[in-house]
Amino acid sequence: MSNGSEQAPVVVTGGAGAIGAIVARRLAEAGHPVRVIDNLSSGHRERLKDLEETGRLRFHEHDLRNVTGMAEILRGAASVWHFAANPNIPKGLEDPRLDLEHGTLATAHVLEAARQAHVPRILFSSSSVVYGMPTVFPTPESYGPLLPESQYGGSKLASEAMISAYCHSYGMKGWIFRFANIVGPGMSHGVIYDFLRKLQRDPTRLEVLGDGRQAKSYLWVDDCVDAMLLAEERSTDPVNVFNLGTEQQVPVRDIAERVVRAFGGTARIEYTGGARGWVGDIPQQLLSVEKIRALGWRPRFDSSTTVDKAIASGRSELGL
Amino acid sequence: MSNGSEQAPVVVTGGAGAIGAIVARRLAEAGHPVRVIDNLSSGHRERLKDLEETGRLRFHEHDLRNVTGMAEILRGAASVWHFAANPNIPKGLEDPRLDLEHGTLATAHVLEAARQAHVPRILFSSSSVVYGMPTVFPTPESYGPLLPESQYGGSKLASEAMISAYCHSYGMKGWIFRFANIVGPGMSHGVIYDFLRKLQRDPTRLEVLGDGRQAKSYLWVDDCVDAMLLAEERSTDPVNVFNLGTEQQVPVRDIAERVVRAFGGTARIEYTGGARGWVGDIPQQLLSVEKIRALGWRPRFDSSTTVDKAIASGRSELGL
Repeated sequence: MSNGSEQAPVVVTGGAGAIGAIVARRLAEAGHPVRVIDNLSSGHRERLKDLEETGRLRFHEHDLRNVTGMAEILRGAASVWHFAANPNIPKGLEDPRLDLEHGTLATAHVLEAARQAHVPRILFSSSSVVYGMPTVFPTPESYGPLLPESQYGGSKLASEAMISAYCHSYGMKGWIFRFANIVGPGMSHGVIYDFLRKLQRDPTRLEVLGDGRQAKSYLWVDDCVDAMLLAEERSTDPVNVFNLGTEQQVPVRDIAERVVRAFGGTARIEYTGGARGWVGDIPQQLLSVEKIRALGWRPRFDSSTTVDKAIASGRSELGL
Repeated sequence: MSNGSEQAPVVVTGGAGAIGAIVARRLAEAGHPVRVIDNLSSGHRERLKDLEETGRLRFHEHDLRNVTGMAEILRGAASVWHFAANPNIPKGLEDPRLDLEHGTLATAHVLEAARQAHVPRILFSSSSVVYGMPTVFPTPESYGPLLPESQYGGSKLASEAMISAYCHSYGMKGWIFRFANIVGPGMSHGVIYDFLRKLQRDPTRLEVLGDGRQAKSYLWVDDCVDAMLLAEERSTDPVNVFNLGTEQQVPVRDIAERVVRAFGGTARIEYTGGARGWVGDIPQQLLSVEKIRALGWRPRFDSSTTVDKAIASGRSELGL
């Protein structure tokens, strides 16, 4: 760790979000002056309060749908970490403009601003959902064809495509991180959060979307951020694609039972049935993480421990 | 072939372009009332004149950057063939808005109009450039990761991503055709056309971008259209990805020599050097076409014959 004056400024979009705020903090702690861009549609500025007060972080309330002024915010930065997105996958099904505007177009604007401001690096939070319904498990980064099944997945792959094009066209360097389910403090979406909220509303029953056999890998947010920082340091390609996850799946049924146990074990679990939780849900997810492991990364927590930690932190935040 | 009243209407975007117009004609000949959408930025309405006069085709001059009114044009159609795009890859490097607006956003608007108008099928002209610089030849549809190197390639992959998302989200069915170099009458871009134009301007010398070792596969446009019509008829997946090309590569050096011979063989060929013709050029392209061949498709012309035919038709059109 060095002091702020020695390091180049960095930009974090979606920096008031659950993952972006942790990245912003880590970069500030490493001595980078941090500029956060967030429209506060789902982020919370309080997460950054102490960093703002010490002057290590500057907050820009800005909606990425509007490209005007973005190049000015990016000017002089060494990198842009692009996390801003519509965080709600099922909602994108109802209104496809959400992922088009806050996903695809937002990325186009970040890239164009980076080009105009000569920012040489972009790091992007993509998702396992770009694989659609893969037939290979664990799924490697080289899997194809990529046929995402949700508007959110479409916007993540579209963003990857534009990032690759910009990096190769204008000499920028890119990192594409395909996330498993990332969980940690401050969650406001996802199956664990949803189960906790449901039991908070009605402690006698827990409705589970689908048959509960959906099984995914869970990665604790600090492990995820460690991986991204390591990948940035050690990658050499113009565009570097990394899966980030753990090597175990946890079935939704298992999560439901753990959450119910945490509430005293009396709630009745009711499954709505069907292989998928909702249209666009990818019921099986397990990413190959050989590539990031080859750089020396190991997650501190496996999927099962991560789920338990997420249940504990969610309960504490919801006052349960 | 049946008469127009029996078949469902179809929409062709970019239907005044070199490929779109041939598809529009084939669909009209098969008895479909055809609606063409084109902004005439690079297409020519004269290509469709006779079809318009017989009432089998209706022309809508419309720019796909504007979504307003598109659902009305699509209403009642059985399918939309989406060919409209910026046809000039190097130009997209200079102004990235070109491929964003006429590629990515145009596709988003076509999809949204199709959803609103309940059009159940979309067929899309993607490109081999979505593979970026592949390491496997012939390159199969399952190749990954997809890292396009031009804005054009980025917009094609972004369009694929959104098509997949829409098809899975709203029960539509999609075809994604990844084109090799498609050539035929009415070309206005590409290496063969460029060489002819250069010799037309100066018959004493031919400048070749790169070292001439770039080698790609060439497919005659009618063979390409046959493949698409067959694929539409015989595919069963929600989203069907097909490479379309021939199984031979022709080096640029070879094309230069053939064009020079066609002009009497006296021009001096000068290579600018380097593996690529321009930033974003993919010097080696050879697609696996096993998947479309398995449906029974065979091209009438191989790459070499296709190149000769393209030289002949280009000469005739340029009055050379």
